[in-house]
Amino acid sequence: MGILLKNILAVLPEKDKDVIRETDIYIEGSRIVSVGDRPEGFFAEKVIDGKDRLAIPGLINCHTHSYMSFMRNMADDISFMDWLFGTIDPIEQKMTDEDAYWGACLAIIEMMKSGTTCFNDMQMNIHQTTRAVKESGMRAVISRGLVGSGNDEGGRMRLQQAFEEKEAARDCDRLTFMLGPHAPYTCDDSYMRIVSEEAKKNHMRIHVHLSESESEIQQIQEKYGVSPIEMADQNGLFDVPAIAAHCVQITEKDMEILKKKNVSVVTNPASNMKLGNGFAPVPAMLKKGINICLGTDGAASNNSLNMFHELSLLTLVHKGVHKTPQCISAEEGFRIVTINGARALGLEKEIGSLETGKKADIAILDLNSPSLTPRNNLLAGLSYSANGSEVETVIIDGKITMEGRKVLTMDEALVCRKVNEIITRMSIDKK
Amino acid sequence: MGILLKNILAVLPEKDKDVIRETDIYIEGSRIVSVGDRPEGFFAEKVIDGKDRLAIPGLINCHTHSYMSFMRNMADDISFMDWLFGTIDPIEQKMTDEDAYWGACLAIIEMMKSGTTCFNDMQMNIHQTTRAVKESGMRAVISRGLVGSGNDEGGRMRLQQAFEEKEAARDCDRLTFMLGPHAPYTCDDSYMRIVSEEAKKNHMRIHVHLSESESEIQQIQEKYGVSPIEMADQNGLFDVPAIAAHCVQITEKDMEILKKKNVSVVTNPASNMKLGNGFAPVPAMLKKGINICLGTDGAASNNSLNMFHELSLLTLVHKGVHKTPQCISAEEGFRIVTINGARALGLEKEIGSLETGKKADIAILDLNSPSLTPRNNLLAGLSYSANGSEVETVIIDGKITMEGRKVLTMDEALVCRKVNEIITRMSIDKK
Repeated sequence: MGILLKNILAVLPEKDKDVIRETDIYIEGSRIVSVGDRPEGFFAEKVIDGKDRLAIPGLINCHTHSYMSFMRNMADDISFMDWLFGTIDPIEQKMTDEDAYWGACLAIIEMMKSGTTCFNDMQMNIHQTTRAVKESGMRAVISRGLVGSGNDEGGRMRLQQAFEEKEAARDCDRLTFMLGPHAPYTCDDSYMRIVSEEAKKNHMRIHVHLSESESEIQQIQEKYGVSPIEMADQNGLFDVPAIAAHCVQITEKDMEILKKKNVSVVTNPASNMKLGNGFAPVPAMLKKGINICLGTDGAASNNSLNMFHELSLLTLVHKGVHKTPQCISAEEGFRIVTINGARALGLEKEIGSLETGKKADIAILDLNSPSLTPRNNLLAGLSYSANGSEVETVIIDGKITMEGRKVLTMDEALVCRKVNEIITRMSIDKK
Repeated sequence: MGILLKNILAVLPEKDKDVIRETDIYIEGSRIVSVGDRPEGFFAEKVIDGKDRLAIPGLINCHTHSYMSFMRNMADDISFMDWLFGTIDPIEQKMTDEDAYWGACLAIIEMMKSGTTCFNDMQMNIHQTTRAVKESGMRAVISRGLVGSGNDEGGRMRLQQAFEEKEAARDCDRLTFMLGPHAPYTCDDSYMRIVSEEAKKNHMRIHVHLSESESEIQQIQEKYGVSPIEMADQNGLFDVPAIAAHCVQITEKDMEILKKKNVSVVTNPASNMKLGNGFAPVPAMLKKGINICLGTDGAASNNSLNMFHELSLLTLVHKGVHKTPQCISAEEGFRIVTINGARALGLEKEIGSLETGKKADIAILDLNSPSLTPRNNLLAGLSYSANGSEVETVIIDGKITMEGRKVLTMDEALVCRKVNEIITRMSIDKK
């Protein structure tokens, strides 16, 4: 289907920065076939009037756990290890396939309604997430969370599942897969080596949690005498393209490793604050030339999957921490949630900017929103003022998945009802 | 007109905390006439079905500059004194009455659409703000920003205007007034004494900026040999009930003064971060028993007037700064944006909670919003997950001012257009 966004203000890449210009955007099949000139023979079955609207590349959430959305607000105001092992783990033991499915549906609706068109997910139940992704029209990169010790049966089984799940989703080209060794405190060194070997052999990327909490650092230091990032490096995780979530507590040496091995770092400011882990040294990492992208983490530790909220945190908190108002500008923030995210996922030729030939993953915002008025500096508006509700229409892979703030591909009320039922059931189970 | 909120979940005060219960809320004239039982002879001209809805006391924004909303995104990523004297001041010199009016209208729309029903404003052009408040149905507390030195003519004139403006707004009981000595670096000691004397004589409260930036501290220390808070105290500002904005850079002695003199502190986390001023010691002030409330500051330094956004910052950033996930709980945050705010404004008997006899200032949220799903812990949802767009209906002073997210009292599209015209004109002026 041909879609034309006519006379629309758009955030467009120009050399190494983004500019805002009025243009026409032509979409055919899953791709942007032209920005500016009408391609020969183009027929628009649908025209979206650009008046009072802004088109942006869909935001990319580079670290989340979508199934966890049904656990939103279940474990607040407690420390990281209590959160993970005292609350989340026991809930996950009781989670059924259907729970994981409705959790993923809720996550996708929340993300879509706030302008996210692609997410990088670490998962417990991939079949249910791929099911939700397929139905919703979302784009996702998925890794099964791998936990293991040496060559133990559980670890081997999870690795095998990861490959089977990848195979089973072959029919959907909005889905790609990574291998996801969970973290240095849940995967030992020899298991990490097994996983990195598999990643190399199968040309897959790695998605891993690293240096999130002080207790993690201490634990790994005691066990291996090195930092979590050194441990990951020593066991081959960075020998393939890798994306490391958190990196809150890191040394200068850690930063050098990340830079040298071209690791992308996904920062999660809300989750890091909420669990009391602190602030990642994002300005220093940016200065070093490390590719920084942004993630919400799961709804059990954020408790929001709204990337506009996360973008405002990214561009505000470091100014406060370093008492430097120039720290991470609005423009830099916007690149972090778009093209940097695409690069971290190995999808920079496909998504992350509005360019001819790329996939049509687009969020269209209503410029008559009070938060985006006046329009003098819309990149600042996107980073500092927007709350996500300005997103009116979402196009993913060339298909309109939301229009007039109504998600077309999923039943929003049903999803909310189902998730509320899960929580009611779990509360009854507890009694 | 009688309004009944029927079978609605509501945040209600119970002893010293908030609980969520299903109830009926009866509104007659400007007040809540009952929570629970139907009052004798009550006739509901309007019934709002509570199914899938949550009623909360309207949020109270305790520090802003509403006219500044037309300056949103005009002065980003620069230091505080450059921001104030290099950018904002010159714009204010060119500001017309109509500019101030449309700025205030925009501020009110943004606040109302994100659940704020009362704001504490420091102003340059009060007639235009009171005009916007009267038309919109909002509630506001207003102080003219007073700047002066000794007994100079400018200072005396502004003080006189403040009283005239108060007098001119006598016909609207949604409006109350404070005196607003701007800050220790714009009011000298003898002018501060004149203002405090007037406040005492006229039984008025004080609204002042204190200890916002390091350069302010340095300047006041050099000039008077004391901190800004000591300077304000020595010149009588705290001899009437006072509300002090910011208090970012404060000493133990400052905190003791604030506590002893019963000063309410309004913290503005976004603005403090954005201008590189840092983080106010909110957990320490709470521990000391100081009444803490929350403000957005103006849209030229935030750049949002969304109190849900600000609430999420309040409950997140201090957890990160102190690496303590227990720091400022969701429940504590919600009281800070409601009843604490009312107390700071001297309106705790009128607003800040849903109680029989109080003014009917209520925001009603749609619980089928993905961000508020599941409903297991809605106070956490309000602090950590909501973005403001869940607010569906707003009632202020017993009148419905927004319904189905449409502001009934103002023309939203017209306001956006007018503000965009101001910016276009100012850009042309600059050339």
